[in-house]
Amino acid sequence: VRLRDLAERFGGQIRGDDTRAIDGVATLEHASASEVSFLSNPRYRAALANSSAGAILISDEDAGSIDSGGRTLWVGDNPYARFAHVAQFFATQHSLPPSAGIHPSAVVDGSAQVDAGVHIGPGAVIGAGAHVGAGSVVGAACIIGAGTRIGAGSLLHARVTIYPDCVVGARAILHSGVVIGADGFGFAREGVAWVKIPQTGRVVIGADVEIGANTTIDRGALDDTEIGDGVKLDNQIQIGHNCRIGAHTVIAGCTGIAGSTTIGARCMIGGAAMIIGHLSIADDTTVSVATVVSHSIIKPGVYTGFYPMAENAQWEKNAALVRHLDRLRERVRALEKLLPQQKGGA
Amino acid sequence: VRLRDLAERFGGQIRGDDTRAIDGVATLEHASASEVSFLSNPRYRAALANSSAGAILISDEDAGSIDSGGRTLWVGDNPYARFAHVAQFFATQHSLPPSAGIHPSAVVDGSAQVDAGVHIGPGAVIGAGAHVGAGSVVGAACIIGAGTRIGAGSLLHARVTIYPDCVVGARAILHSGVVIGADGFGFAREGVAWVKIPQTGRVVIGADVEIGANTTIDRGALDDTEIGDGVKLDNQIQIGHNCRIGAHTVIAGCTGIAGSTTIGARCMIGGAAMIIGHLSIADDTTVSVATVVSHSIIKPGVYTGFYPMAENAQWEKNAALVRHLDRLRERVRALEKLLPQQKGGA
Amino acid sequence: VRLRDLAERFGGQIRGDDTRAIDGVATLEHASASEVSFLSNPRYRAALANSSAGAILISDEDAGSIDSGGRTLWVGDNPYARFAHVAQFFATQHSLPPSAGIHPSAVVDGSAQVDAGVHIGPGAVIGAGAHVGAGSVVGAACIIGAGTRIGAGSLLHARVTIYPDCVVGARAILHSGVVIGADGFGFAREGVAWVKIPQTGRVVIGADVEIGANTTIDRGALDDTEIGDGVKLDNQIQIGHNCRIGAHTVIAGCTGIAGSTTIGARCMIGGAAMIIGHLSIADDTTVSVATVVSHSIIKPGVYTGFYPMAENAQWEKNAALVRHLDRLRERVRALEKLLPQQKGGA
Repeated sequence: VRLRDLAERFGGQIRGDDTRAIDGVATLEHASASEVSFLSNPRYRAALANSSAGAILISDEDAGSIDSGGRTLWVGDNPYARFAHVAQFFATQHSLPPSAGIHPSAVVDGSAQVDAGVHIGPGAVIGAGAHVGAGSVVGAACIIGAGTRIGAGSLLHARVTIYPDCVVGARAILHSGVVIGADGFGFAREGVAWVKIPQTGRVVIGADVEIGANTTIDRGALDDTEIGDGVKLDNQIQIGHNCRIGAHTVIAGCTGIAGSTTIGARCMIGGAAMIIGHLSIADDTTVSVATVVSHSIIKPGVYTGFYPMAENAQWEKNAALVRHLDRLRERVRALEKLLPQQKGGA
Repeated sequence: VRLRDLAERFGGQIRGDDTRAIDGVATLEHASASEVSFLSNPRYRAALANSSAGAILISDEDAGSIDSGGRTLWVGDNPYARFAHVAQFFATQHSLPPSAGIHPSAVVDGSAQVDAGVHIGPGAVIGAGAHVGAGSVVGAACIIGAGTRIGAGSLLHARVTIYPDCVVGARAILHSGVVIGADGFGFAREGVAWVKIPQTGRVVIGADVEIGANTTIDRGALDDTEIGDGVKLDNQIQIGHNCRIGAHTVIAGCTGIAGSTTIGARCMIGGAAMIIGHLSIADDTTVSVATVVSHSIIKPGVYTGFYPMAENAQWEKNAALVRHLDRLRERVRALEKLLPQQKGGA
Repeated sequence: VRLRDLAERFGGQIRGDDTRAIDGVATLEHASASEVSFLSNPRYRAALANSSAGAILISDEDAGSIDSGGRTLWVGDNPYARFAHVAQFFATQHSLPPSAGIHPSAVVDGSAQVDAGVHIGPGAVIGAGAHVGAGSVVGAACIIGAGTRIGAGSLLHARVTIYPDCVVGARAILHSGVVIGADGFGFAREGVAWVKIPQTGRVVIGADVEIGANTTIDRGALDDTEIGDGVKLDNQIQIGHNCRIGAHTVIAGCTGIAGSTTIGARCMIGGAAMIIGHLSIADDTTVSVATVVSHSIIKPGVYTGFYPMAENAQWEKNAALVRHLDRLRERVRALEKLLPQQKGGA
C-alpha cells in the first residue's frame, strides 16, 4: 500500500515521499523502510533520530520542533490513535479470521442459536438456549453456559468460560482463562459456619469490551453485575458481584474490586489497585497503581496510596517510625507545651 | 408457597399477612409482592421504606425500632442467615441439577470409580484410580487427576483442574479455573541456577468448602497442604504449599498466602491481603483488606496495614516525608536536646 | 538403594551406617529409617533431635556444631541442593512419565510437527505449523496455538494455553491455567473511546523455565516479551507486554509486572510485588513481598516498601498521622523557628 493511500484512508498529512510502499508497522527502533512507526512520547525522540522507518506518525507540535533528518513524517493530531488504526489495518491483512463452521469435536446443544458466519473451535461447549451472534469466533475449549448470549462480531480466544444466563455485547474480545458469571462471594454467618447466599443475578457486559487473560467477573447476588460499553480490562482482574463499571473505563492488571462497588465512566484504574466494596467512584477518576480505595470518591482527580519503596534498611527504620508515629507526635506535643508561645502561633 | 409455610420451615414470626404466596427472593429495591427480602444492615432502612416486598426478614431489634408502613415483617434473629436458607430453597426449585450420566465426549479411565447419580460433562477427564462421590456434578472440561478423590454431593463447575492424588471433601463447590494440586514453589539454589524440589505432598480439602474462580492451591512439598471444613475461598486466591487453613475461615479475593503458613479456624481475611510464609495466625483473627501480614499473630483481633489513599499531590508530599521520616525524628531529637527539661519529662 | 550409592552419585560424605537402604525423602519430622531428610535452616535443629530419618543431609558447619545423637549424617556443602537432587531421583523412580502417543480425542493439525516420544493428552489442541519437541508431555486440554514451538523434554500439565507464534524453550514445566501470549494491554485514546493496538509481538521463553498455575505472560505489542533461561515463576503472576526477565530470576506468586519493564538476571522478586511499566531493574536485585517498585533500580540490593501491619485501632491512629504528615512537619518547623540556635545546629 502506498503511503498516500494510507493517509487518504486514515487522515493526516505526509511530509516527504508519499509514494513509498508500506507493508506494516513497527517500533522506531526496528522499523524498516516499508514500515510506519510513531512518536507519541517525547522521551523517544532519540529513537526517532536513529530510525529507518518509512514514515513516522507525529503530532503537529512535535513535527514543528524536531529535526526529522529528512525522514518522511506523517503529521496530524493524536498520532498514537492513528497508529492504532494503521496497525489494525495491517493486522487484518496479515491474519485471516478462522473460517466459519463448527468443529466436529465441539458440543453444541440442539437448542442453542448459532448465527451466520460463526466459528466454533475444537472442544467448545455451547449450552442449551445459548446464542452466539453473527460472525463471532468461539475459540477452542470455550464454554458458553445455557442461556448466555454473545453479541455479533465477538472474538473469544481459547478457553473462555461463561456461566449460564450472562450477556456479552457485540465486538467483545475475551482472552483465555476469563471466567464470567461465577458465583459472587456471599455467605451469611450462622454459628461458626457460613450459609451460602445463592447468586442468581447475571453478568451483563456492553459492546466493545475487551477482557484480559484469567480475569474473573462474578455474577450478581440478586441483581446483575454490569460492565459498560467500551470498558477495557487487563489480565487477572477480579470484579465482585453487583459491581457496575461505567463506559470506557480502563482497568490495569491484578486489580481487585470488591462487591457492590460502582465505578464511573472513563475512569483509569492502575494495576494491582484494590477497591473495597459498596463504594462509588466518580466519572473520570484516576486511581494509581497499588492504591487501596477505602472510601468513595466524589470528586474526579488522581488518587494514590502506596508505600514508597526504599532500600530495606532504610525502609525498616522508617516503618518502625510509622508504626509508632503517635509517639513522635507526643514528643512534638510535649515540646509545644514547653514553648507556650507556640500555641499562640499555631 | 405461602409465607406461613416458609416460616414454619425456616423459623421466625410473621407480622402481617402470612397467607401471601411467595415465589422467590429479591433486594428491598426490586422485590415484588410475591418475593421475600431482608434488612440486615441499618443503612438500608430507607430502601425498606420504599420496598414492595411481600415480606421482609428483619431482626427483633430492627422490627421494634422501625416504621414498617404496614409491610409484612418476618421477624427473628439472624435475618440474613434465614434469608440465605430461603434463597437456597427457591434456587433449588428454580434450577434442576444436571441429570446423572457421563457425556460421551468425557474421558473416564477404566479404573476410576464413579458413584451413583454422578453427572460428568462434555470433555471432562477422569484419571486412573480417581473417585467421584455419589451425586456429584463434574462440569464440562474438568480434569480430575489420577488417584484424586471427590466427596459426595460436590459441584465442580466447568473447567476445574485437580492434579493427581488430592482429596476434596463432601459437598464442595469449586468454580471454573480453580487449580488444585499444582507444584508448590520450591527450589534450591545451586550456583546461579535453581534446582527443583519435587512436590510430592497432596492437597487435602475438608467438607463443605467453596473455592472461587481461578483460585490456586498448591500441593505440599513433602507433607500436605490442608484446607479445613467449611472454609470459603473467593476468586483468584493463591495458597502456597504446606499451608493449613482452619475450619470455617473465609478469605476474600486476590489474597496470597505464602508457603507453610498456618491460619487458624474462623478467621476472616480481607481481599488482596498478603500473608508471608512460615507464619501462624490465631483462631478468630480478622485481617483487613490489602494488609501484609509479615509476622505471626498470636492474639485474635483485627489487624490492618495499608497505606491511606489521598489525592496524588497530597500523597506525594506525605510519601516523601514517610521516606525520610528518620530525618523528622532527628529534628525532634535536636529540639529536645535544646530543651533539657523535656528529657526529664519523658 | 544403599546410602553409600546415593553418596557416590550425589556427593557428600556419610557419617554413620552407609549401608542402610533408602527408598525416599521426607521432612525431619516425618522421615522414617529408610528416608533421607535435611537440615538447611538452623531453626529446625530441634526437629533433628527428634527425627527418625535414616540419614540427614547437613552442612559441614552444622555437622560440627550439633549433637547428632548417633544419627547418620550426610555431610557436605549446600545440603538443600543435594536434597533436591536426591528427591528428584526418587520422584523419578516413583512416577513414570505418561507413555508416548496422541490421545484419540486430541486435535492435532496435519501441519503440526510432533517429535518422537511425545505424549499428547485427551482434548489437547495443536495448531497448524506448531512444533512439539522430542519427549515432551502435553497434558489434557492443552492448547498450542498455530506456529508455536515447544522445546524438547517439556512438561505441560493439563490445561495450559499458548497463543500462536510463541516459543517455549527446552525442559519447560508449565502448570495448569497458564496463559502465554494473550494480547498485551495496549490502547490509544480517541475521544472517550479506546482504540486497540494490535499486539503482534511474540512471547519467547528460554530453557529450563517453570511457570506456576494461572500465571499469564502477554505477547509483545510489536517486539517480543522475553523470559530468560532458568527463570522460575510462581502462581498467578502477570507479566505485561514487552517485559524482559533475565536468566535465573525467581518471582513469587501474585506479582504483577507492567509492560515494557526489564528485570535483570538472578533477581528475587517477592510475592505480591507490583512493578510498574517501562522500568529497569539491575541484576541480582531482591524486591521484598508486596513492594511497589515505582522507579528503576540501578544498584543491586534489597528493596522494600509495604505498610507495617498493626492492630486496627493503632493502624487507624497512625494512618491518620501519615495522611497529614505534612502538618506534623509544620509543627516541627514552627518549633525550630522558636529556637533559632536549632537552625545553626542542623
